[in-house]
Amino acid sequence: MTVPATTPDDVAAIVRRAAEASALWRRSTIGDRVGALGAVADALDAHADELIAEAQRETHLPEPRLRGEVRRTSFQLRLFGEVLEEGTWLDARIDHADGDWPMGAPRPDLRRQLEPIGPVLVFAASNFPFAFSVAGGDSASALAAGNAVVVKAHRGHPRLSAATTTVVRDALTSVGAPAGLFDTVYGTEAGVQALKDPLIQAAAFTGSIAGGRALFDIAASRPQPIPFYGELGSVNPAFVTRSAASERGQDIVEGFVASVTGSAGQLCTKPGVLLVPADSGLDALLASASLPGPAPLLNDGIADGFREAVEATASHDAVEVLAGSTGASGDPAPVLLRTTAAALRADHESLISEMFGPAALVATYEDETEMVAVAEVLEGQLTATVVGSEDDTIATELVPVLATKAGRVLWNQWPTGVSVTWAQQHGGPYPATTAVGTTSVGAAAITRFLRPVSYQNMPDALLPPALRAANPLGIPRRVDGALTTS
Amino acid sequence: MTVPATTPDDVAAIVRRAAEASALWRRSTIGDRVGALGAVADALDAHADELIAEAQRETHLPEPRLRGEVRRTSFQLRLFGEVLEEGTWLDARIDHADGDWPMGAPRPDLRRQLEPIGPVLVFAASNFPFAFSVAGGDSASALAAGNAVVVKAHRGHPRLSAATTTVVRDALTSVGAPAGLFDTVYGTEAGVQALKDPLIQAAAFTGSIAGGRALFDIAASRPQPIPFYGELGSVNPAFVTRSAASERGQDIVEGFVASVTGSAGQLCTKPGVLLVPADSGLDALLASASLPGPAPLLNDGIADGFREAVEATASHDAVEVLAGSTGASGDPAPVLLRTTAAALRADHESLISEMFGPAALVATYEDETEMVAVAEVLEGQLTATVVGSEDDTIATELVPVLATKAGRVLWNQWPTGVSVTWAQQHGGPYPATTAVGTTSVGAAAITRFLRPVSYQNMPDALLPPALRAANPLGIPRRVDGALTTS
Repeated sequence: MTVPATTPDDVAAIVRRAAEASALWRRSTIGDRVGALGAVADALDAHADELIAEAQRETHLPEPRLRGEVRRTSFQLRLFGEVLEEGTWLDARIDHADGDWPMGAPRPDLRRQLEPIGPVLVFAASNFPFAFSVAGGDSASALAAGNAVVVKAHRGHPRLSAATTTVVRDALTSVGAPAGLFDTVYGTEAGVQALKDPLIQAAAFTGSIAGGRALFDIAASRPQPIPFYGELGSVNPAFVTRSAASERGQDIVEGFVASVTGSAGQLCTKPGVLLVPADSGLDALLASASLPGPAPLLNDGIADGFREAVEATASHDAVEVLAGSTGASGDPAPVLLRTTAAALRADHESLISEMFGPAALVATYEDETEMVAVAEVLEGQLTATVVGSEDDTIATELVPVLATKAGRVLWNQWPTGVSVTWAQQHGGPYPATTAVGTTSVGAAAITRFLRPVSYQNMPDALLPPALRAANPLGIPRRVDGALTTS
Repeated sequence: MTVPATTPDDVAAIVRRAAEASALWRRSTIGDRVGALGAVADALDAHADELIAEAQRETHLPEPRLRGEVRRTSFQLRLFGEVLEEGTWLDARIDHADGDWPMGAPRPDLRRQLEPIGPVLVFAASNFPFAFSVAGGDSASALAAGNAVVVKAHRGHPRLSAATTTVVRDALTSVGAPAGLFDTVYGTEAGVQALKDPLIQAAAFTGSIAGGRALFDIAASRPQPIPFYGELGSVNPAFVTRSAASERGQDIVEGFVASVTGSAGQLCTKPGVLLVPADSGLDALLASASLPGPAPLLNDGIADGFREAVEATASHDAVEVLAGSTGASGDPAPVLLRTTAAALRADHESLISEMFGPAALVATYEDETEMVAVAEVLEGQLTATVVGSEDDTIATELVPVLATKAGRVLWNQWPTGVSVTWAQQHGGPYPATTAVGTTSVGAAAITRFLRPVSYQNMPDALLPPALRAANPLGIPRRVDGALTTS
């Protein structure tokens, strides 16, 4: 038994209730929100066993991976509580009136902070049924920012979505959060309807380029366009220098294969292209690498898409199979393809393309400067990785170019595994995301669901607490241009 | 003699040179950029007389207003220099590796900062030929952020645009900035072509809702959508409480009329709707207020648009002329229209609409709660103003609602005059802007032209200076979650 699609009337009612709840929640205290996030985190942990069992049935992901994901999910809910209490997220700024302001006109008293944007629509992802789904990072940061959340469940795990929704709602109710603050809708049409609803003020998405772009276009073409934070596709190229290849060939191959095949390759940060020196023997090591066996992917659609993407790349004139196989029936098996860096540059639009699943394209270069040339033709990426040695002079050219192409640039670590921290950046130029200035993972993600408001000449009693003279929240603020830590 | 439209070949070449210059400028030091901004500011001041003379011929704006605007323009260039040196704009974050990170997996070393987004296209405005035009705020913040700038000149002041471009380019050349870092194109088609050019990575605009929306749609429908920071239209409602009306009626009328008619009403923050108590006599004071005489508007298109907008409002069944007149031939004259708050609520889509020029609609209310009801139906605004007394209980309801609708909420000051400060917010929900999370005035405007990049496990020598262990820039940074002021 699956979960029925939400009817149009029910979608409208859920969004309306979310808008009403959002108007209340925006006036909640930081303490209220920290309490709510903590209650949701505790409830997820308490219900982990039953939720993980459901997730295993619906996603084919193994139990240890899912257990780690639940831990990550409750952790990030609590981390946003820490973010809230630290207070910098408000970006509080106070400029006192200044009759001698050198602009040529007196400066009025101006005080600025970030405030909730309004009800947020979250499109859940298939590949992280917890961390990027109903109670995942987008929901956590939107709630933390003071907004109601409507989740559009992913069709890949509807029963888990319903069960998680119940856990979240019960937890929110237990701490007295407004009714309607959090709810979930089911079905593609329901998601589109919610996205078009004038009450929704921002949307977040994690998924494919095609799906994400279609929704981005809807968000942008509304009478009132709204921010659409889409995390779409990424190839996550990795570049192995000559010295690294010669010094640590076997280590590199093992790390790369593990990163490509972990979670059956169904990670948005999977390294999909690897550049290696042609004469290093690294391609031979890769050809004889031990690959995991076939494994079921998340759902049939993803499996079909994977086979098509691999076939498209493998059938290219300049590509051959390096390890594994492409044509097996049944569950997809890991496969490594091979080409040259010259071919990659010449036809980068075809060859540097995401294969969502356990596959990667290995490209051999003759000269290290070819890595820079490939970097120059990249589209936007979530990550780019350099495997090198500290005295590689090529790195001083390569890293700055990669920083213009990717949200995260790694050195001698593999990009899968996205730590939830203060300094994490999970984003990048299109098509990695539709919002290059933002992140969907880490403390800075909260900013997406906030908007700045300045108060001019406002009496202290009418100001939000963060901007009052006495600094009752005890937060860092910028006063007359100077940063003050409480 | 006017300035010819830029040819398609020339537009392509200008954008290409800008992209090359942007790649160099992004690696410039903070000192380089501060020097460049200062050189441009000094050059504008040095050439002020000749530029102002040209501006008077092309815009009909009076000399004192233009002189003040030049001062504002050079001031904001220098302010962005201060912003750069203070360093918080980099949002530098350092998370050291942590094997016990409670997420369930070790935290790698992650370091994040904001970096230049790439070449920026700036659409200049008609009504601020200096401060929101060639060398205006958008150009200043984009250059400060480390980007090349291509300006699309406004057709209302082409010769001034060309002269200003020369001043800016000569100043940049004098300090050794890359060739092509700053240039200007002319003509509607040239602007559209530049906006569609794949090398352009962000665009900024100040102008009408119709024009801005058309360009936003182009930016959003590119193969690679890019951020489009449009500042479009705003009615800037103002709300007078009962006590304020009875205590300071004459002051309020004089301040309001001055704000409506200053710069012939051609300010995006002009208060276009004023709510007043019905029985306060304020409408009678407004009816007998001394209005300035007719004055030429910026250009014929704006004059025609003003007449149409006033006529559309004045012909509404619930509207009458309160002061001034609508039908005169020749230069437009200031006019105040009158309706009721009830009518405003009932047909807010028709009546709460921008009339760009010296006109406003005065709406009388019977009960102060009607102000809250009108606030609830507002579209997004740049500003909203409350004229009240500190013991007005209605203010505690009204201000929080207005904060959900406007980027700046004022108390007992008029919204025209947008101070350039650290805490300024010039923005708001659509249609005030197309990017609700951003500002186009003040120190925070620089963020629009930056994007975050994280470096994982990166050797110190390969990190940007802001993220190195020794903090060579001496800037505030967030280290392991805690804000440190150098």
